[in-house]
Amino acid sequence: MRDVAIIGVGQIEVGEHWDTSLRHLALGAVQAAIADAGVAQADALYVGNMLSGELAGQEHLGALVADFAGLRGIEAVKIEAACGSGAAALRMGYVAVAGGLADVVIVAGVEKMTDVLGQDTTAALTLAADGDYEAFLGITFVAVNALLMQRYMHEYGYSHQDFAPFAVNAHKNAVNNPYAMFRFPITAERFAEAKMIATPINLLDSSPICDGAAAVVLAPADMARSLSAAPIRIAASAIGTDSLAVHDRRDPMVLDGAVISTRRAYEQANAGPEDIDLFELHDAFSVMAALSLEGAGFAEKGQGLRLALDGEVGMDGKIPVTTMGGLKARGHPVGATGMYQIVEVVQQLRGLAGKNQVKDARLGMAQNIGGSGATVVTHILERMDG
Amino acid sequence: MRDVAIIGVGQIEVGEHWDTSLRHLALGAVQAAIADAGVAQADALYVGNMLSGELAGQEHLGALVADFAGLRGIEAVKIEAACGSGAAALRMGYVAVAGGLADVVIVAGVEKMTDVLGQDTTAALTLAADGDYEAFLGITFVAVNALLMQRYMHEYGYSHQDFAPFAVNAHKNAVNNPYAMFRFPITAERFAEAKMIATPINLLDSSPICDGAAAVVLAPADMARSLSAAPIRIAASAIGTDSLAVHDRRDPMVLDGAVISTRRAYEQANAGPEDIDLFELHDAFSVMAALSLEGAGFAEKGQGLRLALDGEVGMDGKIPVTTMGGLKARGHPVGATGMYQIVEVVQQLRGLAGKNQVKDARLGMAQNIGGSGATVVTHILERMDG
Repeated sequence: MRDVAIIGVGQIEVGEHWDTSLRHLALGAVQAAIADAGVAQADALYVGNMLSGELAGQEHLGALVADFAGLRGIEAVKIEAACGSGAAALRMGYVAVAGGLADVVIVAGVEKMTDVLGQDTTAALTLAADGDYEAFLGITFVAVNALLMQRYMHEYGYSHQDFAPFAVNAHKNAVNNPYAMFRFPITAERFAEAKMIATPINLLDSSPICDGAAAVVLAPADMARSLSAAPIRIAASAIGTDSLAVHDRRDPMVLDGAVISTRRAYEQANAGPEDIDLFELHDAFSVMAALSLEGAGFAEKGQGLRLALDGEVGMDGKIPVTTMGGLKARGHPVGATGMYQIVEVVQQLRGLAGKNQVKDARLGMAQNIGGSGATVVTHILERMDG
Repeated sequence: MRDVAIIGVGQIEVGEHWDTSLRHLALGAVQAAIADAGVAQADALYVGNMLSGELAGQEHLGALVADFAGLRGIEAVKIEAACGSGAAALRMGYVAVAGGLADVVIVAGVEKMTDVLGQDTTAALTLAADGDYEAFLGITFVAVNALLMQRYMHEYGYSHQDFAPFAVNAHKNAVNNPYAMFRFPITAERFAEAKMIATPINLLDSSPICDGAAAVVLAPADMARSLSAAPIRIAASAIGTDSLAVHDRRDPMVLDGAVISTRRAYEQANAGPEDIDLFELHDAFSVMAALSLEGAGFAEKGQGLRLALDGEVGMDGKIPVTTMGGLKARGHPVGATGMYQIVEVVQQLRGLAGKNQVKDARLGMAQNIGGSGATVVTHILERMDG
């Protein structure tokens, strides 16, 4: 197995791109990543996407994006793992390069959720849940998360307002991210007054429906040094899974997929949570931020929210999270999100995160979650100049 | 890179399974493959599927099938490349095992197209075509193929009736395949009288809408000999792509994706078309059988159909195709088809193809096509006892 490095990154601004088609979204990110890497060709393209068929009237994204990006002919497929599709595509790219079956691989995540042919985005998102045992009964994906939040509050004695720090921190960090959808701060008071979506989840517990695309270029680490001024090594890449249906889990308050994929990632990187300088977690809803912190070993059961309440998830805390705005404020174009997280960790490790720079960041982790935890993809990235 | 072998195969009967859900279809194939391989665990599961979201109301198939098959926790994702999804998933499994990132990998293809939530299967299949430049104009996927067939007849001077041998051969072979959907022979006369679907494609030019699942278990070849009595080596695995839209191609009568992926496959296997003992080609519509034979180097441009007219694609011909019924008569559950082709080649190379056994088969090729040729996945399998 070979070491794999990220030699280029690209992203477009997250938002409601009513004037931009699915393929143009992907093109923007892929072109930017290719330009950043300075490569002219690639061996393969893996595209992470969840809902192009349901919402944008288009499957077969691998060949489509390859052709549109001027890469006609190369190996190309779409990878789907619900909201974890982006990072799952990176995992496939990592496998191909690490195993020596490809040298230069482009990985993109893309999602078009607004101004689409499919009318019901809420129904489409429910495809991440168990169709027969959750969705068929009429529960939406937000409602699945609402049940988790209710249970979290009940089990551990928190109030809804206790979740405010996650959203406040995310919005604060998004202010300085030119690619973020919501570049404005919010207060705990505004959080308290936000309208209810699915009790107890309110609008500011929730990431937005939006469009976006992000991409990276991979190469073997030994090639990377000659191709890139600041290659970033993929120190770990792992996927863990669990049941889609929450009621089927060992413990609904533990993301076993996160436990499994993080354990594998720490082993690969020969590191532990204490070594991680920043953590791009999957705050699709604020309860998922708490559960992700716990699943990844940053807090004991029920203590993930305590970390936020103690101010330890901010830029100066023990473990800075959502440093560029997270899903909440950068935005959550579902199949693209995992790749935005990766691009943001790369920017941090390159020292290019501007006002949100985590000082001396050397090891960064990204965790992309599919559904309510059935697929969890964890990557640890490392600066190569150390 | 390590040699990779198939150590187990499983399939369910193709048909209209009104009483069987998507996950149960997949389970049947995965369980059969696991039993055939005699393994208890796996490192990863890759699921090929095209339309589970649109038709069956379910995305996130990787984790779903893993959990339902008793493999909760393992790495699992869905791979999509339109009708080429099944073989594309095998390609990902091959990459993981060949590169040393996994030892035992299960690859499944599954599709549920009948008795589904989504009402319009014809519209769903059009997601394989270019949404903005083909489907948006109202053309169906059958109609795209009808244009190709019309052009083929016009360019090379064939009649519609000249295509009959492909369907007649496929139905003849399906009679002896207990997993085939249409286990009855047809005559050239019946072909001539079949009702028109999209001129000039008639019902007997067309593969059926149906449900199915097929799976294999992969392992490194050096482990395979101890695990399986009859391991089959994957001598080549390659994907080639082209534009989704037919009008954008270099030459609408050449499947460049097939040319590219077959060339790569021949290089990997150190073989040429003259070495291939049987060819499971992608006869979704009969014109694709002709184009696939040409793209894969078995015939010159315009001569693929001639091979069939000369009786060279039958069991005793130069290159036996669709030996177990092909897409036409075994059935075409789109995301599962590529894996059915692989299972059938394995059965041939194991010498277990019964009355349809190709004598002394040593090298078999399968070619799975996404859309009207935008993704072409080619695998060459080889008997290991030679």
